[in-house]
Amino acid sequence: MIRYKIILEYLGTDFVGWQKQNNHLSIQECLESAIYQFSKENPVAYASGRTDAGVHALGQVCHFDLSKEYDAKVIIRALNHFLKAYPIVVKNCAIVNSDFHSRFSAISRRYTYKINNGPTPLAIEKDRMWWVRYPLNTLSMQEGANYLIGQHDFTSFRATECQAKSPIKTITNITISQDKDIISIEITAPSFLHHMVRNIVGTLMLVGTNKWLPIDVKYALEAKIRSAAGMTAPACGLYFTSVTYKDIS
Amino acid sequence: MIRYKIILEYLGTDFVGWQKQNNHLSIQECLESAIYQFSKENPVAYASGRTDAGVHALGQVCHFDLSKEYDAKVIIRALNHFLKAYPIVVKNCAIVNSDFHSRFSAISRRYTYKINNGPTPLAIEKDRMWWVRYPLNTLSMQEGANYLIGQHDFTSFRATECQAKSPIKTITNITISQDKDIISIEITAPSFLHHMVRNIVGTLMLVGTNKWLPIDVKYALEAKIRSAAGMTAPACGLYFTSVTYKDIS
Repeated sequence: MIRYKIILEYLGTDFVGWQKQNNHLSIQECLESAIYQFSKENPVAYASGRTDAGVHALGQVCHFDLSKEYDAKVIIRALNHFLKAYPIVVKNCAIVNSDFHSRFSAISRRYTYKINNGPTPLAIEKDRMWWVRYPLNTLSMQEGANYLIGQHDFTSFRATECQAKSPIKTITNITISQDKDIISIEITAPSFLHHMVRNIVGTLMLVGTNKWLPIDVKYALEAKIRSAAGMTAPACGLYFTSVTYKDIS
Repeated sequence: MIRYKIILEYLGTDFVGWQKQNNHLSIQECLESAIYQFSKENPVAYASGRTDAGVHALGQVCHFDLSKEYDAKVIIRALNHFLKAYPIVVKNCAIVNSDFHSRFSAISRRYTYKINNGPTPLAIEKDRMWWVRYPLNTLSMQEGANYLIGQHDFTSFRATECQAKSPIKTITNITISQDKDIISIEITAPSFLHHMVRNIVGTLMLVGTNKWLPIDVKYALEAKIRSAAGMTAPACGLYFTSVTYKDIS
């Protein structure tokens, strides 16, 4: 079997998320259907991380196996042809060793959360950012975010339905930047708990609106209880940006 | 009566265009409905220019009259509340003199056409740009575009169903710029013929792919017949960017 690694961009708005579910359209189902239409084979497509309903991806990485070897350009063009009805695009493809696994070989993942901090909602970018109309202090938000960098028990930022065995995770970087009305919060870690990024963003919002001091983020982390942190930010602002692997990027 | 001038942003994808039509959703209908829900008055909303089906706006200007005077901020907030189901946003509002007319007082209009010139289609920006996969030579395109600047008979770039009395128009500026894979073609003129921008873009595409020399744009212009110019570029890449008025911007 030949193993293919692909990079996917998708708009999550009208999907139930990455994972296949009965009666709801998922990214996985659309991708597997396109693979079948192209190859007449039925491999499972594995993603580096499951994205929730409404969450987008700029650089989701997936792998699947086919019995035949195709040129990477043929795979890209054929899958994009069969995906053209959907806001899902294969950006890149490479043939990889059979010990490569999109999920288990990943050593780092990056998410970006986008906020429209302008005075009015967005039309062209509707469902692509969270609109927060109160002006946010991004310097305070960065100061609060810095308390989360490193290895911690992230129970306060974990969805109650999270199935991970341990709440211990290591955030390697959080960078908050602003370009006119658009604020981007970029978070990098080897792996994340369920809703972790959105719960962190909802908490940093409290700091940005001056309801919390930056150090309150540290207290929320130390409380190790979900109710000590802020709300879960809406899915529409979240982008799964990129995945890093040991040997290949 | 109090005259209100508003600036609108909208995503045209799912609309039949600006103008009200039976059985199809238009921007005008959504806006007039929001005005009614807010004010219980039924004014006509006039736009500075009609946009076609699928064409977007970043800075469409409209005006309408109400018997009561409201603060501009109240108008913005109320209309956006009643428009929230749609990708239509009121970006700004001002009370203007009753001799202001969004269409007849305009002295200049600007359109921007966006092309994705990358190797794959777009997912997040689906229906927001024209995907042209063949690498475009933007320097040649600009050279060809320069022949169109000034006052000319634009019959070759006019839709056959165009209802303007004269095909003479004056293009004051065409600027073609590139940022990575995204090419923007910005065209400014006091007014335009029907499909004029999209027909110009479809023609410049022939130059960008080296099927035409830049000077062939001049020959197409001089031919004064629609068939001498290129195809009509798709609506999805076109943005009505801004309108300039004599006294107020």
